[in-house]
Parts: sequence; structure tokens; C-alpha cells
Amino acid sequence: MARTPRAGPLHLASIALDPEAGEPLHRQLYFALREAILEGRLRPAARLPSSRALAADLGVSRNTVLAAFEQLLAEGYIEGRVGAGSYVSQLLPEDALNARAAVVAGTGVSRPPPGPSRRGVRLAATVGSTIRPRAFAPGLPELAQFPFEEWARLLQRHWRAPPSRFLIGGDPAGHAPLRAALAAHLGAARAVRCAPEQVFVVSGAQQALDLATRVLLDPGDAVWVEDPGYPGLLGVLAAAGVTIVPVGVDGEGLMVAEGRTIGRRARMACVSPSHQFPLGVTMSLARRLELLDWAREADAFVLEDDYDSEYRYAGRPLAALQGLDADGRVLYVGTMSKVMFPGLRLGYMVVPPHLVDAFLAVRRATDTHPSTLAQPALAEFIEDGSLSAHIRRTRALYARRQELLLESAARHLDGRLHLAPSAAGMHLVGRLAEGVDDRALARRARHHEVEAPAMSGYYHGHAPSPGLLLGYAGVPDREIERAVERLAKAFADRIVD
Amino acid sequence: MARTPRAGPLHLASIALDPEAGEPLHRQLYFALREAILEGRLRPAARLPSSRALAADLGVSRNTVLAAFEQLLAEGYIEGRVGAGSYVSQLLPEDALNARAAVVAGTGVSRPPPGPSRRGVRLAATVGSTIRPRAFAPGLPELAQFPFEEWARLLQRHWRAPPSRFLIGGDPAGHAPLRAALAAHLGAARAVRCAPEQVFVVSGAQQALDLATRVLLDPGDAVWVEDPGYPGLLGVLAAAGVTIVPVGVDGEGLMVAEGRTIGRRARMACVSPSHQFPLGVTMSLARRLELLDWAREADAFVLEDDYDSEYRYAGRPLAALQGLDADGRVLYVGTMSKVMFPGLRLGYMVVPPHLVDAFLAVRRATDTHPSTLAQPALAEFIEDGSLSAHIRRTRALYARRQELLLESAARHLDGRLHLAPSAAGMHLVGRLAEGVDDRALARRARHHEVEAPAMSGYYHGHAPSPGLLLGYAGVPDREIERAVERLAKAFADRIVD
Repeated sequence: MARTPRAGPLHLASIALDPEAGEPLHRQLYFALREAILEGRLRPAARLPSSRALAADLGVSRNTVLAAFEQLLAEGYIEGRVGAGSYVSQLLPEDALNARAAVVAGTGVSRPPPGPSRRGVRLAATVGSTIRPRAFAPGLPELAQFPFEEWARLLQRHWRAPPSRFLIGGDPAGHAPLRAALAAHLGAARAVRCAPEQVFVVSGAQQALDLATRVLLDPGDAVWVEDPGYPGLLGVLAAAGVTIVPVGVDGEGLMVAEGRTIGRRARMACVSPSHQFPLGVTMSLARRLELLDWAREADAFVLEDDYDSEYRYAGRPLAALQGLDADGRVLYVGTMSKVMFPGLRLGYMVVPPHLVDAFLAVRRATDTHPSTLAQPALAEFIEDGSLSAHIRRTRALYARRQELLLESAARHLDGRLHLAPSAAGMHLVGRLAEGVDDRALARRARHHEVEAPAMSGYYHGHAPSPGLLLGYAGVPDREIERAVERLAKAFADRIVD
Repeated sequence: MARTPRAGPLHLASIALDPEAGEPLHRQLYFALREAILEGRLRPAARLPSSRALAADLGVSRNTVLAAFEQLLAEGYIEGRVGAGSYVSQLLPEDALNARAAVVAGTGVSRPPPGPSRRGVRLAATVGSTIRPRAFAPGLPELAQFPFEEWARLLQRHWRAPPSRFLIGGDPAGHAPLRAALAAHLGAARAVRCAPEQVFVVSGAQQALDLATRVLLDPGDAVWVEDPGYPGLLGVLAAAGVTIVPVGVDGEGLMVAEGRTIGRRARMACVSPSHQFPLGVTMSLARRLELLDWAREADAFVLEDDYDSEYRYAGRPLAALQGLDADGRVLYVGTMSKVMFPGLRLGYMVVPPHLVDAFLAVRRATDTHPSTLAQPALAEFIEDGSLSAHIRRTRALYARRQELLLESAARHLDGRLHLAPSAAGMHLVGRLAEGVDDRALARRARHHEVEAPAMSGYYHGHAPSPGLLLGYAGVPDREIERAVERLAKAFADRIVD
């Protein structure tokens, strides 16, 4: 029930107080009087009714009015001492009030508030459609089998009586024990050569690239990216104002010779040599050496995104490109999103020794330091072998799921989607017959509650052949066949989108 | 003890295996052969000794050699089947190997790896000296009295059996219940007008400004900053490629008239109206209206940094500038660093409704989403009143510490550092006599283990008068007087720096 005041000497008819609203009456009155002043209904120097009179007019207690007046007085809207009469402040800038009143009344130079800048519009447009977390969303790991009891216990243990360095967290590169644990892990597992001081804790590949572009590149510099490639890097590169040069990928990885032709003077190449995203190719040794050779000639950097190298099902994993770098040009990037869970947003970057100081300074200047919340628990999770154990368990699980996907696809999609086994990774690329519109097919799959992103969506230009990406790692065993059956319906659909 | 091989038909004399090293012998051999190939000591097509012969030469087991060969084979360094003879791969690009060998030997075009770009050098230079966490470091809250037992329990409870949305964490604006809790808190405490959808969880004021510059500004746009002001914003603005326009601050806050004279066409103003950093001024109502009036005329945005508004010791807090914004130009930024602990790196930004979609898209394109690790626990910490209780406790504590600082300073520094009480905040500004070199004094204070940053360090140009910043909030009561005594010694010192 709203009460409105009797008409009084001041035009307070617009003040409607609602005793049933969540907000206290004195706050409601404060806001109402403030608006009346800001919109010119109460002019500077105008006298307000006494608190007693206003309370009577509004049918509220005098204390309600006094509390509202006190706030208005504290904020400078009114002057005078309560009891001796209150006036609308004479110090308020009339021009600003008039302009505001005119805008509110619709008689002024009404100007819609500005929208995003040209950069903002361009960046907003780099996002593709979001992928829902269900079969066969690429990049989604198994979540149900993560040892959360242990993770929660580690968090509790580190936070119930934390040392003050966790609370201040001043190191822009991250928590020293975590950096040491990561350096040891990367040396043993990936033949990455680094001291703990070279390791930076970041939120993921995007923040790693963001930091790298800020430290190493100037606006207008050219950067090679793989075509097709990981779309998550494009927004960061666009934000950095650099020129993106898409370079094709063949069976040996990024085609360095093509890059030399179309963008010899690039300052950086972003590659995923262990397991190219999305094609799944491993960059050959010859190509790796060629890439490093180009980088030496061009005086350029190489950003190595080793996003899912932990998942290799046959043969030995190839050592990281970083370990082949003789002169400090390779930045190595990895993530915990795949081996733990994406919501954690925690990754790492290994920076050449001569650049560590510059990375520290730029990070301090632009992002202070990473949150300490996860870091001590994660250091222990790595050191005590829990992470390795989880990776071993999920590796066996994903190998089986890839087989289940291949079998189900052979049963239900044979002749329409050609899937080949892969020795690594968390997704497969399914090839479609020439001429099939993979984007339309992916949309139809969504109608059947299956994510199967079109390969075309990962290419900068025209895709050479249509295909679908099927992430299997996070799909429960029993769900794989059912999801493939739903996908088969998308092939059968005659729906025209 | 390192063993070296007998001289054999191949020049393997450089291979030194150390059975006492942490690394397995087969890994050591793999690395040694890899280097020999990469540096041209083993040429493409060269035949390797048989595994049996090499094992004998090196005094290791044949399995050690076989494991090393297997890895080299998997990675493409050697060819052939084990047993039938192994050869250095003929597919290795000779040019790249020769260039590398020349670099390693020091006979090639030796070129030091490139350093930071011009942008990187400029950004790295925006960092001032780091402030150590001890008396009287500004911005440091009381850490010992935070309810960590409860915080740790909340973390454990939310993570021991988390729902899958915590694990995926796909919302680029953050966890919905946290955004709702923040919107309710900001509406009640700061008269911020917002729906939960307008709230973005960020890592702090820097990430908020980073996102805002990316969405709203183009390179070359001008941005007003307060002079003196918070140096943490400068690196982000420099990274965005915008032009920084320092605008003076008087007793009513940012001098809008000066801004109109020197940078009328700016596209954004960054202000701290509740408690200007570092001067501690509250922006007057008249000045607030003037600022919004300018923004309307210039079609500009205002970023309101409300970094410590929770700490007000006298009078009512002024409502946020955001609540006065009639047409969607104000972005409101707050942080948990002061009311919880800095290592958390968690803050929030309230975005005008018409810009929410653009902020969502740009965040998704450049940073995916914030970590979910803290968010569910924090939402509950706010909802159950724990945060408010902690703020009330620390408010009383900080009020007392400010008094202790004033008393100690009167006793030990009288006539040399003039401190006036402040109704708000976590630090005081101490004024020095004209002509005192505050930077030199701050350096001398450091020799006595006291942080007291020079006011000059917060000005873009010449500081009108020298002073020191003294943060008192995080200094234990009993330590305040002792630290002031140490500071007094810095005044007495004759050390010439």
C-alpha cells in the first residue's frame, strides 16, 4: 500500500512511500527528496517543510524524516541545522541540475549513452557461439571422477590458519612452491628446460598470450596463428592491436614455408605442436626445427600452447618445442583446465630467462599478481602425486571413451562421418563428404542436444573440407552411444535452418 | 661420478652420464644424443652404433640405450628399427641444423634473443617501487583477525562435492549467486542502483579498468586520471594505448573545470569520489554533478573506484556517484582486497545495462570467465552476514588505530610531520615542511624498516607540497608507536642517499 502526501506548500505529490517495500521508509524518503532536488522540482535555496510537518503530511514518524534529512545534509543536498529550518543547498551547480532536469523531462539535448568503441565492437565480434557443456563439447574433461574430497581438504588445510604471505600474495609470478612444483613436473614430463623463476602462474592460455603480447609486441606487429586453430587466442590478439596472419596446417603441423611467404616479418608464431588444435596433428621434428630457424632469422618469438599434452594413449610423448630452443625465443604455455577442471582458471607460462624481469614488471603494472587461493593447495596436489594419479586414471578412461566413440560411430554414422583413431588428445575430428554444410549439420545436432562444432568454424578462410569436432573425454561411457544415436538423427533431419 | 665412453667410431666423447644425477640414465643419454644431432656432431644419415656396442662403450645396460633410442625414434631424430641399425634421420632440415650448430659454436650470425617491445618497455616502467607489507604500508588491511576458520570451512563445504556448474564456470560475468549478493549489498550500503545482471566479478580494479578500456575506448582516446592518484591504473591505461590526462584534485575532489580546460574531449574519467586516493578528500555533491554534466556533454564515461568506502568512522557515508547517474555513463568498481585480504584478488564492477552484452562478449573473447574457486564461498560469506560482521569489527579497530597513530605522531613527530584526523579510509597523509625531500625521507624510513611512501610519488608532475602516506589499518596496535619511533629516527638521520 503506497501512501501519498496531502498537497502542501511544496510539490511533494510525487513522493510515494511504501511501508511494505523492503527498503526502510527513511531511505525511500531520502531517495525521493534527492530525486526532487536533482530533477529541479526542489530548486536550490528552496525551504523544506519542517520535519514535523513533513512527517504529518506523509503519515510517517518524525524520526523517519529526520533520518532522511540527516543523510541529505551529510551528502550536501540540503543545508541548515535540523530544527532551524532546512534549505536545498545553494552550492549545487544550477547548470548541471538544469541539464539533468531537461534530460529527465525529455526536453533537453537527449543523447543516448555511448556504446562500445570501435575496438569494443571488434573484440565482441571475435567470440563464436558458446558451446554447451554436454556431449560432445570439445575441451571438457571428466569432472565426476576428480578427487574433490581431497581437493577440498587441501583448501581447508591451507586456509584455516594461512601464513601472511598467502594473504598478501605479492609475487607477480605466483606462489614460489607452486612454481617449483610446476618446473619439476614440466622438466620430467615434457623435457621443458626451466628454473622455477621462469614459471608464471596465469589464469590460462589467454592471460599468458595477453601478457606476452604486452611485453613482446607492439601494435601493428604481425603474429602467425594456425589455420585452423584455437579461436580463444584471437580476441587477445585483437585486443593487443596486432595483425593476425593465419598460416595453414598440414600433416606435419604449421606450414612454416607458407608463413615465410605470407608473413616473413612476423614477430611471433602461436602454435600447438604436441597436438594441433583442432586437427590433432603432431608437429614433426623437421617442422619444429624449421620453425625455430625462422624465428631466429626473423628475430621472432614462438608461443607453444601445450594445452592437452598429458593425454597421449600410444607411443611416447614428444618433448616440448621449448626444450629445443637454443636462444630464448619460445614461451611455453600449459593449463590445469584439462587435467583438473575448467572453472579453476589456472595455467602457467614458462618465459625465457632474459625476459623474466620484463614479464614481472608488466604483470605487476597491469594485474598485480595472481590470486593465492588455489596456489598452495595446488602445489601440494602436484607434489604429493595426486595430480599424476588423476591424470593416469583419466588417461585410461579417455582412451576407452575414444574407443567407445569410434565403435558407436561405426555402428550409427558409418559412411556419413569418418572418424580415425587418434594417439592423443580429448577429441576426434570427423570428416564429412565433400559439399556437406557442416555448420548447418552442427546446428541440427544442437536440436538433438549434441554439441558437434563445425570444422569450418575454426578456419579463418574457406575450410578445405567439412567436418565435425567431437570431444569425448567428458562424456560418461554409457552416454556416448546415446549421444551418437542423437547425432545420427541430425544427419537424417531434413530441417532447413 | 661421471663416466665417459671410450673413443669409438662416432664422436661420442661428449656424452657424460652421471648415475648419481636425479635424472634416469636413459633420459640423460636421450638428451646427449639429441644435442649431438641438433648441433651437427651427428650428421643426418650417420649410422649410430648398435645398442649393444653403445651400452658397452658407456658402461650402461643395454635397456638404457634401447629406451633412449626408442624416444629418439618416436620423436623423429633417428630412423630404422632397433636391431636392424639406427641412423640419424635424413628428414632433418640441414639448413636449420647448420644455423643452429653455428649459433651454438659461436661462429654463426650470433644474434641475442630479442627483448621486450617498445610497449613492453613502457609498461614495465610504469611500476613504482614495491611496498613491503609492514608498518605503514598503505592499503594493507588487518589480516590476523579475519575469520579464516570459517572461510576455510566454507571453501571445503563448497568444493567437496561441487555441482558441475562450479567446475565448468562458463558465465563470463561470474557466479550468479555472488552477483546477486553483491548487488543487494551495494544497493543497501552504497545506494548503487543495479540488477545482479550488471555485476561483473573481476580480479580487482585493474582488471575492471582493463575490461572497460577494451570495451569502451579506442587507442589514442584521452582519459582523465586524478593527480595525485592511484598508480595501479596507469599500467592498464598505458597497455590500452590511451592518452593519460592528469587532472588536479582540490578540497572538493577532481577539478572538473581544469579537466575541461586541458582535456575537454576525453572519453573517460577515473575517479575515487568517496575517499580520494591518496589525499582522502570526499568529492562534494556539486563536483559530482559537475562531473556527470561534463560526461553528458563530452559523451564520456566515468569509472568510479570505490576502493575503501566500507571504512568510514564519522558521519554517514555518501552514496556512490553511480546512483546519481541518470543515463548509464558510470562504471562502479569495488574490491574485496581491503575488506578480506589482498591475496584473494577478487573485486567487482557494475556496468550500465545497455553495455552488459558488450562486456560479456569482450570478457568471453579475452579472459573466458573468472575462476569459480572463491565465488560460491564468498557468496555465502556475504549472505550469512559474516562479511558485514568482519567489516564492523575492523571498522572499530581501524578507528582506534588511526587514533593511536595520531597520538604517537603527536608525541614523536610533532612539528615535523603534520597529521590531521580523517573520517574515513585506511591511511593518513602526513604533511612535511616546504622544501623537505619526501622521497629521500621515505628511503631513510625504509632503512628503519618503515614504509612511508612519498606523496611526490603519486603526482604526475611536480607535487605542490611534500608529504608521507601512512597506512595504519594493518598495523597491530602495539606496533604503531614503535614504528612511529623508528620513523622519527628517519627524520633525525643525516644519511645522504
